[in-house]
Amino acid sequence: MNVAMIGLGKMGINLCENLIRNNNQVVAFDLNENARQEAEKLGAKSVASLEEVVIALRKPRIVWVMLPAGKPTNETIDRLSKLLDKDDIVIDGGNSFYKDSLKHNQILKAQGIKFFDCGTSGGKSGANQNGNFMIGGDDYQTFQYIEPIFKGIAMKDGYLYTGKAGSGHYLKMVHNGIEYGMMEAIAEGFDVLEHSQFKYDNEAVAKVWSNGSVIRGWLMELAEDAFSKDSDLENIKGIMHSSGEGQWTLDEALKLQVPTPVIGMSLMMRYRSLEDDTFTGKVVSALRNEFGGHAIDKTK
Amino acid sequence: MNVAMIGLGKMGINLCENLIRNNNQVVAFDLNENARQEAEKLGAKSVASLEEVVIALRKPRIVWVMLPAGKPTNETIDRLSKLLDKDDIVIDGGNSFYKDSLKHNQILKAQGIKFFDCGTSGGKSGANQNGNFMIGGDDYQTFQYIEPIFKGIAMKDGYLYTGKAGSGHYLKMVHNGIEYGMMEAIAEGFDVLEHSQFKYDNEAVAKVWSNGSVIRGWLMELAEDAFSKDSDLENIKGIMHSSGEGQWTLDEALKLQVPTPVIGMSLMMRYRSLEDDTFTGKVVSALRNEFGGHAIDKTK
Repeated sequence: MNVAMIGLGKMGINLCENLIRNNNQVVAFDLNENARQEAEKLGAKSVASLEEVVIALRKPRIVWVMLPAGKPTNETIDRLSKLLDKDDIVIDGGNSFYKDSLKHNQILKAQGIKFFDCGTSGGKSGANQNGNFMIGGDDYQTFQYIEPIFKGIAMKDGYLYTGKAGSGHYLKMVHNGIEYGMMEAIAEGFDVLEHSQFKYDNEAVAKVWSNGSVIRGWLMELAEDAFSKDSDLENIKGIMHSSGEGQWTLDEALKLQVPTPVIGMSLMMRYRSLEDDTFTGKVVSALRNEFGGHAIDKTK
Repeated sequence: MNVAMIGLGKMGINLCENLIRNNNQVVAFDLNENARQEAEKLGAKSVASLEEVVIALRKPRIVWVMLPAGKPTNETIDRLSKLLDKDDIVIDGGNSFYKDSLKHNQILKAQGIKFFDCGTSGGKSGANQNGNFMIGGDDYQTFQYIEPIFKGIAMKDGYLYTGKAGSGHYLKMVHNGIEYGMMEAIAEGFDVLEHSQFKYDNEAVAKVWSNGSVIRGWLMELAEDAFSKDSDLENIKGIMHSSGEGQWTLDEALKLQVPTPVIGMSLMMRYRSLEDDTFTGKVVSALRNEFGGHAIDKTK
């Protein structure tokens, strides 16, 4: 099929390659000229503006937006709502907050444009091959029209039409919440091993756990890979950044009053890792000193 | 090789089948006659006492103990220390606490018997085929002697010599601690979906997540399987039993002062699930009523 890829970052460029390998004709757009040249090398036709995207595509146009969530995506979808025609199709493959996707659906629907919010998992390698896609959208018939795209670029059984608009990004949000908890659990286990009386080879442990154990899975394989490069991760600081989806999952759990202590704690441990010291620690230390004269560590 | 299997429960009987399929001659012992007959059908020679196990095996004898952790395993190893000869080999494949395994190693070593503590993962299906084994033991040369057994019954790269006695069961303990956290994270995610404004097909979600997503793994495949039988798990109560390893992991983390809040919280949520009501809930409710006159729910 004929698809435009808007945004040629690490996900977008790999998706281009995946789409082209699966016999789609890709129109590639990014503000960055180097990225456009890379897409050309892969066999895409690159263009330098959204206006040119619209001209280059056959109708009904299929425009895949693969940009950072928030402002870049929101602004692009706003502009597309003015540039595209009725029955054109917009897929947001980024990590947009599902409430933004509900808004995007409204904006595009008002112009007769079909919208699909597509949660994309599997990392860079998945974008390039055997990806994972959770696709929401109000118009199932139109989904069936674009389904061959996903069939080609996804792993077997690796895409799902999830229902109404918003449900794709919602599912991806919860996927990432689960990911926070799984990663923290794996990491805490290795932390116990690292402090234990025995001497384990972390790479060998991750490898044996990847082959036949109950806790096998891709995250454990990635741990093996990481430990193979740096067995005690001496070159990596334990600062755990996050890009929003864990927080959104917790926001949602709070709104729905669903107890999710492990996902919540995983998020809090990420926040804790961003701080060298905490005000909580100062307060507890001060109070212990106040009531019991317990030792405090002075800052200088 | 010539191996005795002590304990023909769901793990032991599957291990028998796996061992026999991999050209080992198995002597099978269980107190239960039906279990012994089942082992005979699989091609094992069954015997009705530990004394007969000793007679039936060639030297050096290899005795695999596959019994519930605690008293059954402890008593059996005690008896084996009196029945076996110098250079015989005992493998404890159960879920023994690693400190028990350290004791078992002492007891057996005093008689010149070699001991291996073998953490076994992969469930019943893994016991039957492509299993996962983490094997500790002080004598690496003797490990090399029994290694062909593991090579046959384990998944490729699915066994590991972990070092000194105790280190196998210690690693299995931490494996199970990680398992607690991963399972709780997965479950909390599905709980959010179950309460969300969208209507998801849990089986389809677990399936798409099993094929190419970041959170793919065996536990997600098992979730797909469970949801395929009962899509909203209406026939299962949310009571989460546990068999000790999660608690031991937390005990160990507390001893080592390693922060493991997610594994700890997963364990606490299991305990919470065992209670219909909590005294914590009563106390908080009473205090809210005392200071603010907030409503309380009366027991009758």
